[in-house]
Amino acid sequence: MQTAVATAKVLIGGEWRESDAEGVFEPVNPATGEKLGREFPVSRWSDCDRALTAAVEAAHELERAAPEKIAAFLEAYAKELEADAEAIVQAAHEETALAASPRLKDVELPRTTDQLRQAAAAARQGTWRRVTIDRAKNIRSCYAPIGPVVVFGPNNFPFAFNGVSGGDFAAAIAAGNPVIAKAHPLHAYTSQLMAEAAARALRGSGLPAATVQMIYKVNHENGERLVGDPRIGAAGFTGSKGAGLKLKHAADAAGKPIYLEMSSLNPVVFLPEGVKENAEKWARELGDSCTMGSGQFCTRPNLGFLVAGEATETFMRELAASFESKAPHALLSESTRAQLHESVEELQKAGAKLLTGGGNVPGPGYKYASTLLRVSGKHFAAAPHELQREAFGNEVMVVVAEDEAELVEALHHLEGQLTGCVYSAASGPDDALYARIEPVLRRKVGRLLNDKMPTGVAVSQAMNHGGPYPATGHPGFTAVGIPASIARFTVLQCYDNVREDRLPEFLRG
Amino acid sequence: MQTAVATAKVLIGGEWRESDAEGVFEPVNPATGEKLGREFPVSRWSDCDRALTAAVEAAHELERAAPEKIAAFLEAYAKELEADAEAIVQAAHEETALAASPRLKDVELPRTTDQLRQAAAAARQGTWRRVTIDRAKNIRSCYAPIGPVVVFGPNNFPFAFNGVSGGDFAAAIAAGNPVIAKAHPLHAYTSQLMAEAAARALRGSGLPAATVQMIYKVNHENGERLVGDPRIGAAGFTGSKGAGLKLKHAADAAGKPIYLEMSSLNPVVFLPEGVKENAEKWARELGDSCTMGSGQFCTRPNLGFLVAGEATETFMRELAASFESKAPHALLSESTRAQLHESVEELQKAGAKLLTGGGNVPGPGYKYASTLLRVSGKHFAAAPHELQREAFGNEVMVVVAEDEAELVEALHHLEGQLTGCVYSAASGPDDALYARIEPVLRRKVGRLLNDKMPTGVAVSQAMNHGGPYPATGHPGFTAVGIPASIARFTVLQCYDNVREDRLPEFLRG
Repeated sequence: MQTAVATAKVLIGGEWRESDAEGVFEPVNPATGEKLGREFPVSRWSDCDRALTAAVEAAHELERAAPEKIAAFLEAYAKELEADAEAIVQAAHEETALAASPRLKDVELPRTTDQLRQAAAAARQGTWRRVTIDRAKNIRSCYAPIGPVVVFGPNNFPFAFNGVSGGDFAAAIAAGNPVIAKAHPLHAYTSQLMAEAAARALRGSGLPAATVQMIYKVNHENGERLVGDPRIGAAGFTGSKGAGLKLKHAADAAGKPIYLEMSSLNPVVFLPEGVKENAEKWARELGDSCTMGSGQFCTRPNLGFLVAGEATETFMRELAASFESKAPHALLSESTRAQLHESVEELQKAGAKLLTGGGNVPGPGYKYASTLLRVSGKHFAAAPHELQREAFGNEVMVVVAEDEAELVEALHHLEGQLTGCVYSAASGPDDALYARIEPVLRRKVGRLLNDKMPTGVAVSQAMNHGGPYPATGHPGFTAVGIPASIARFTVLQCYDNVREDRLPEFLRG
Repeated sequence: MQTAVATAKVLIGGEWRESDAEGVFEPVNPATGEKLGREFPVSRWSDCDRALTAAVEAAHELERAAPEKIAAFLEAYAKELEADAEAIVQAAHEETALAASPRLKDVELPRTTDQLRQAAAAARQGTWRRVTIDRAKNIRSCYAPIGPVVVFGPNNFPFAFNGVSGGDFAAAIAAGNPVIAKAHPLHAYTSQLMAEAAARALRGSGLPAATVQMIYKVNHENGERLVGDPRIGAAGFTGSKGAGLKLKHAADAAGKPIYLEMSSLNPVVFLPEGVKENAEKWARELGDSCTMGSGQFCTRPNLGFLVAGEATETFMRELAASFESKAPHALLSESTRAQLHESVEELQKAGAKLLTGGGNVPGPGYKYASTLLRVSGKHFAAAPHELQREAFGNEVMVVVAEDEAELVEALHHLEGQLTGCVYSAASGPDDALYARIEPVLRRKVGRLLNDKMPTGVAVSQAMNHGGPYPATGHPGFTAVGIPASIARFTVLQCYDNVREDRLPEFLRG
């Protein structure tokens, strides 16, 4: 821990400079509740304005940059992160209370550098351009960079979704767009270290210095102004529905694309015949998935569906026991815990019954008892909006339907989700019910799973980390899975009868 | 001409049924100003509601329909249109005053049936699904139908962009979505005949009866309700910026994708060295392009850019002469003419000088004198918003810049456009200026042209009929060019660890 340090600088136009700050904030270690002895600025609009102007110039250069240079930068950045891994992991651990190992060091950081390298490969290959040439009509088209991209990272992934290093960042850069990262204040120092690594990698790259810029925090009004600014191409946001919808409103009004990943409850449906065979096993799986990382994943299961019966009662008892047996881990912040508690209260007001948990656990740190709620299928169908309030953290609400019809009806009331999952008997007896619920569930989710918890999001070309509103803002795009994720930060450009020597090289001939 | 006919019926759930109408309208022949003796209903919400409910059911069936069935329907529909071509062309000619031949019979109808057949081929091929299989991780993804699509057709293309037969229709159906067409009231009877052809083609197709539904008119409130209804997947709209932005607002608020093609002035830049050689020729080309079809194309050039000089004065004189030499043709409606005149007045108020035209031409029919306006580059840069007011029809405003720098500055102030075009000297002398303006212009447009008027929109895989806001609502999508245009009406779906026999066939193995 340090004392009396200067306020951190912002990265604008290739320089670490004093922020034109309207205030400061001091990050806290959520495992202890103690201040970490660092101070970061809340930027005024003038910081944003400078970054935007620098980004426009950088965009002009970047769109002409050789793909090899972009790829080499992304790879150099991955190397810099690895070289500085110890300090970065330590910083993230202190700021988030997430386990240094395996989570941060052995899972999330390698995932992040892997993403950067996959993005580098995609930049080199250029398949994201989807070049289409009609020689007979002399018309050619391709996807091209959209322009400066503002990325708002979430609180829960200090590396893999960080505005200055995560999936949106990698996708935007791969397409040749400069990024203005709005770091999440809950891991400001981690973001600073990563941005320093990016700046080092940029130095020898031949790319413009403003390819990567970073500020730590702005007020809501300036955030909304950023996503609607005429100088940007698009924005990416991962975070809460409340914040996401405000940004969406501002971007929509300005006609600017914004790619949002907001809330998702990731329903898991356990079919009755399978439950008879696997009640304990599946309950433990669900319990583990809900409490892993204190449930602070976009794809944690927050919602279970079962049909009433003896085996379901066994499942519920086992799930409660699983929750009670585990000492909860600190949440990301005091407000994360307060919001989780508020949601648990609201869900109860809406008719859910508290079975276990439901309150804070004494410190140190912002711990919350793993919480199990239960509600009937009829109740869920009657108040679907209130009972789909997001409870971000180690909580699950199980909907117990009276019968199959009530289960199907309840699923009809699901809002858009990132994932949806069905566990069923190994073969045969649940198949008819599966066939009834599949069309209902599939249309509500971006990724449909069988017999597997949704929490892991593999970095695969075939991944979809997206889904219908309000899980995201558009059901045709994914935030994970290169090269598909790159599409978000591109525009379609067409050249009609343009003279050969005026075409980009890859459109000639 | 008929007299005392019954109000036309709406096509809902596979039946031609009485509309629950809140009023009626009677189309007029714009070439004569006389009523055509037909009556069409303004649907209440209950019509929309019925259509939406039927569309949801149809969507469930359609998403499982064999691609071959969808393709065969699209082809059968094309044949039905050809079989009924005489009546359809006659109806459209009466309702729009567009030439029966070549425009309607020999250009637009063949284009429309070609689009339907290209969509059929795309449905059969299935490349729009972009199947991605990661066998190692057992994750598979593909694009899938988005759900019921509401298509609002424009006034200016009774066939090729009609909600019940045009590009949006073909793209939505190819992906397996039912369409609710909102016909344009200015060619209601044409739309009725086309919908009858579609219904005939549907009958033997094995596809659900509600695959194609059509209403004629709704009030604004119900239009906005339609595009935000939870039952739809997406909407397509081609028309004015005013109407488009209202629909966009409603769809955005509901989190529903809407693909808008709104206004575009389609700037054409004539570089000075080329103008010296080609002043007369280029002026005539521009004059022809502006007046063809009375300038009622989304891609008509409404805006010219030149650098001041002697040759430019020759160009302007020749352009004025070209306009004066042509007898104007009737516009689509009285309100089309009134809006054009209002825009011409507003452009003058904003500083443009009227060189020729600027008023109605005596009847019969809604004719407007081809209108040429002129403004300085400095003026344009000072009031870019006011001077980019859309004037839909046979009008062009030429911006004459003092010098190259003023030209570049003026182009910086362009709003998003469907197209942008540069005419330049055959070789050499204009190249340096081209290199200066190209990066500015290209970023403002969806399609960049050289040495060619933008009016034609080839149905090519490489076409982009799209562009930055406010030309459209999203710069990554095109309304013309199959299969790319299909992407608008799809969602990304992912199957993670889903059992083999539960996968769609094309994802197995």
